[in-house]
Amino acid sequence: MNKYVTFNEALKLIQQTKINELGIEKIFINQSVGRILYNDIRAKDNMPKFDTSNMDGYAFCYDDLEILKNSGLTIDSINKAGNEFKCEVKKGFCIKTFTGSKMPENADSLVIVEQVKVVDNKIFLKQNENVEKAKWIRKKGENYKKNDILLHKGTHISPFDIGILAQNNNVFVEVYRQPKVAILTSGDEILEIGEIPNNDNYIYSSNNHILNAIVSSLGCIGSIYPILKDSNTTIKNALKDALKQNDVVITTGGMSKGDFDFTKNIIGEFGSSIFESVQIKPGKVISYINCNADKHIIALPGNPISCVVSFLLFGRLIIAKMLGVTPTIPIHKAKLINDIKDIDTSRMEFALADLYLRDGKYEVELKPNRQSYMINNINGAMILIDKKPIKKDNLVDIILLDELIKLKGL
Amino acid sequence: MNKYVTFNEALKLIQQTKINELGIEKIFINQSVGRILYNDIRAKDNMPKFDTSNMDGYAFCYDDLEILKNSGLTIDSINKAGNEFKCEVKKGFCIKTFTGSKMPENADSLVIVEQVKVVDNKIFLKQNENVEKAKWIRKKGENYKKNDILLHKGTHISPFDIGILAQNNNVFVEVYRQPKVAILTSGDEILEIGEIPNNDNYIYSSNNHILNAIVSSLGCIGSIYPILKDSNTTIKNALKDALKQNDVVITTGGMSKGDFDFTKNIIGEFGSSIFESVQIKPGKVISYINCNADKHIIALPGNPISCVVSFLLFGRLIIAKMLGVTPTIPIHKAKLINDIKDIDTSRMEFALADLYLRDGKYEVELKPNRQSYMINNINGAMILIDKKPIKKDNLVDIILLDELIKLKGL
Repeated sequence: MNKYVTFNEALKLIQQTKINELGIEKIFINQSVGRILYNDIRAKDNMPKFDTSNMDGYAFCYDDLEILKNSGLTIDSINKAGNEFKCEVKKGFCIKTFTGSKMPENADSLVIVEQVKVVDNKIFLKQNENVEKAKWIRKKGENYKKNDILLHKGTHISPFDIGILAQNNNVFVEVYRQPKVAILTSGDEILEIGEIPNNDNYIYSSNNHILNAIVSSLGCIGSIYPILKDSNTTIKNALKDALKQNDVVITTGGMSKGDFDFTKNIIGEFGSSIFESVQIKPGKVISYINCNADKHIIALPGNPISCVVSFLLFGRLIIAKMLGVTPTIPIHKAKLINDIKDIDTSRMEFALADLYLRDGKYEVELKPNRQSYMINNINGAMILIDKKPIKKDNLVDIILLDELIKLKGL
Repeated sequence: MNKYVTFNEALKLIQQTKINELGIEKIFINQSVGRILYNDIRAKDNMPKFDTSNMDGYAFCYDDLEILKNSGLTIDSINKAGNEFKCEVKKGFCIKTFTGSKMPENADSLVIVEQVKVVDNKIFLKQNENVEKAKWIRKKGENYKKNDILLHKGTHISPFDIGILAQNNNVFVEVYRQPKVAILTSGDEILEIGEIPNNDNYIYSSNNHILNAIVSSLGCIGSIYPILKDSNTTIKNALKDALKQNDVVITTGGMSKGDFDFTKNIIGEFGSSIFESVQIKPGKVISYINCNADKHIIALPGNPISCVVSFLLFGRLIIAKMLGVTPTIPIHKAKLINDIKDIDTSRMEFALADLYLRDGKYEVELKPNRQSYMINNINGAMILIDKKPIKKDNLVDIILLDELIKLKGL
């Protein structure tokens, strides 16, 4: 059993632990934003499929340039985009051609409408105009070639990727099945939002709702369970049921050393403890139980900031592995704009900070009340404080919160 | 009529144009990620509501410190988090108190369980341990005070914000109604994905699907219309119907100078032209028609990159105004890592580029094939090239693609 491991040991333990990938699911393209690709997407065809006109103009043979300048090229026909007939440019002729039209056979050049005057069904190059060979023509396969990989297995599908999938005629997309994540909260002091209190000694549940929003952002299906009273049997039964119905069970609360912290003593019955508490602040009581590589219990502290930070650091990696994504925490550098004092010398701190981007450089500012700083800035960051004070103007390691609610960082 | 305006003129025209805000809608908290707050969210109570223990330990009066060290403090009772009874510490006594428990009356300090030994229902401070007054206690209102603004009107609600809303017992959230956006595509050469072609002269429609994904990411409800053939009447009827049913109508294609570009000549009938084409590359034909400040036609080019870039630059701002968000394009700086040559001296270019974050600094790299670069990198950026070549190592203006599919930047 790995008790109170370091941050890096915990990361390594997650990397080394067998976590089975979820299976495949086929979904419609319009439901695929935020999902994870199960296979590479390869180009079904060249893009463009043929030499394509990129402007409205007249397709002709560059060998006929002198005719265009002097006696004029006769307009043979009109070549609309999407034309169903085959067209071919003959010597002394041109074919009117539009943006998106397939270039006629033989035509290797385009003169655009602005460059010519039309007289008696003939076009003449205007004075001072030049035509470059093959300009305004998108060559066959210029964007990509048939069989090129357009999107890689493991891609977190973005709105932009939808354009690529559509262009490639992917009506369906094969993605990883969504992890089903049960969210269990325990604590006699916790009321569900909307409940009427009968005294003032309560807090409204926020952990379950923020975790639900985060796991959904990570591509999971969250289920919020009813809030559990502090009772051994209640918690045990809820865990048993949640594990049966879900791939991941997140618990919050009940992990400290108090007389009513039952979760801590129960979770071990359901699988192998990979680690039990980590030398980090906040969130040290986080524990991870692996149940035959298929199911996972992530036990989080009850304090909201501790709960969210520890889940983002470790829970996200466990989910990433289930979705075939290499689990890493994207760590960047930023200039620190105030001194960091009052540090904990016994464990690594992840301190919520304000983030600025100035002249292309990240800067971070620690808040005086960093222990109770509200997570309400998705553009914020966490500074990694490794048991030593840091002077301002130094480069520090940071994690962008925004990147932790996706599976892939920059 | 403002024809072929500059980039900045187009931005100013959108800022100056009257665009009515959409109304209010009340939704459940769990549906609110990605929506825009209609009102400030104010704290309904102090957080915490009362002095709260942040650890498991014993609450006592700091005046009794010497008793704790010498003759011991008698454990009076157990003060579980969520206790319904009132408890008060008397001289010579302590009350066992847990993480999240309300601090008993009179108790101003906490000694944590690790610091004491318990003998005969009395606690004694262990040797070499010290107790600081008020340590481990979260003071009433420490996180925020009743009536503080927790989230501002216009906030694009993030998963993190859900925690704040829940903690504040907001079962419902008042947000702006979602703009209804019709997406119209025209072009005889365009097949809907999944359709079987009867010759090779076609392309699959991607503009409508990528725009649908982007407007959804911006908090709108997109409707994809059937693909329209190049016919004056067909396009006119579709526009009329789409305007009746939606707040915004996006058209793609039909905006160039070709004989089959009908959209260009039709849209003016439906409202006032705010601008018609902009001196930008790609996307110059983009036009904006305002219909009595309530409905909007955004006419985009047919080329996929041009279509997406011009929509992200201008369409997003129009939608932002409908949602009460100040419309700005977040422009940052980055170091250029290769020379920019081959520039267009007549209009501002928005060149798709690869983005790197190294040592806390953004760097951008222009691709050789920048005109046909695939938008498949949500972490990518656009470099603003203002009609002049740029040498490498200079700081350039960039726009992060990721920020353009949200309503608010950093």
